[in-house]
Amino acid sequence: MIKLHGVALSNYYNSVKVALLEKDIPFEEVAQFPSQEPEVLSVSPMGKVPWIEMDGKCLSETNVIFDFLEEIHPEPSLYPADVFERAKAKEIARIVENYVDLPARRHIGTVYFGGPVDDVAFKEARPALEQGLKALSGVAKFAPYIAGDTFTYADIDAYFQIGFANLHSTKIYDWDITESIPGLGDYLAMLRERPSVAAVDGVMQEALANFLPK
Amino acid sequence: MIKLHGVALSNYYNSVKVALLEKDIPFEEVAQFPSQEPEVLSVSPMGKVPWIEMDGKCLSETNVIFDFLEEIHPEPSLYPADVFERAKAKEIARIVENYVDLPARRHIGTVYFGGPVDDVAFKEARPALEQGLKALSGVAKFAPYIAGDTFTYADIDAYFQIGFANLHSTKIYDWDITESIPGLGDYLAMLRERPSVAAVDGVMQEALANFLPK
Repeated sequence: MIKLHGVALSNYYNSVKVALLEKDIPFEEVAQFPSQEPEVLSVSPMGKVPWIEMDGKCLSETNVIFDFLEEIHPEPSLYPADVFERAKAKEIARIVENYVDLPARRHIGTVYFGGPVDDVAFKEARPALEQGLKALSGVAKFAPYIAGDTFTYADIDAYFQIGFANLHSTKIYDWDITESIPGLGDYLAMLRERPSVAAVDGVMQEALANFLPK
Repeated sequence: MIKLHGVALSNYYNSVKVALLEKDIPFEEVAQFPSQEPEVLSVSPMGKVPWIEMDGKCLSETNVIFDFLEEIHPEPSLYPADVFERAKAKEIARIVENYVDLPARRHIGTVYFGGPVDDVAFKEARPALEQGLKALSGVAKFAPYIAGDTFTYADIDAYFQIGFANLHSTKIYDWDITESIPGLGDYLAMLRERPSVAAVDGVMQEALANFLPK
């Protein structure tokens, strides 16, 4: 039995949870906030969530966990069957992770924890986000999924990481990034209808409503 | 024939080049600086190097390219054979990419282009790098390779990305990060003896010597 460590407030925790549900892999959730405690660092080297535990062995980093789940439980596949299309799905996932989520994350102290707006982050995060969204617009297919005609890890990444970034952009810049790419809003609404995404998103929205500063 | 686009000044370009050499995949180098020109963005969505081109199709993001090369040319494998060990090698690679290279990269304007030291980056990058190196120290095996007894993509990442970070830490903080993890310096020296690494490193060192501000 896989144990999934983390909290529903974490967009990456929710990403792995959807992958587990999509693959119908049994798992147990273990509540865990990010932490710099030595016992956490010994299993998740950066102290981040999520990590998964299986037979006492642990693994962190969401896209690494995705690939691992794909190998231990290939069906249903969450990658395109074609080798090049699979690589393009990963490229889309990296763009979402590194150039959409990551710049928005600079405001997490404000949005999640009620801290003051960081002036430097305020100036730098928006153009970085704009560049990431422009990159995404060049590769997103919405056909109907982001990497083509099948639901993939890139869709999971897109749903949760763009949602996370949008929480930040709306709060800090009054800017709804889902309007910045034609078709993106409708695409995210379609994903929200998917049972796995709807279930995990529901828990996340409730957790956020209880946690986020008003 | 694969075309590898980029420049020897790029640590990630050099990483892909070593992977191609290790797999004995024929390739042609095409000189290309990072660029925000539309024709570059149309093939490398963030305008970054490297990207590879094959039959007119392009792919960016180094760890995505690694996985793609592994699929189209499985032997010799640059991942551990065991599924879990393969995932751990990817986890090490992500730590090097996201938590060692990325914080150091904040000083690239100073180190590569002679700009002034950014005060905020000066304060933030060092503790971030310290955390990344601490995470790496928890997972690096040096047995003799970073993920165990075989040479993997994680070693390629470690060699070039730690080298890149160290160029920045020594210039900005007078801090040799290769001394911060026991065994790391000897490990990197061992990698430098490997023919593929030695060849690519030699070209990189010459390019850096010609390019970097004194």
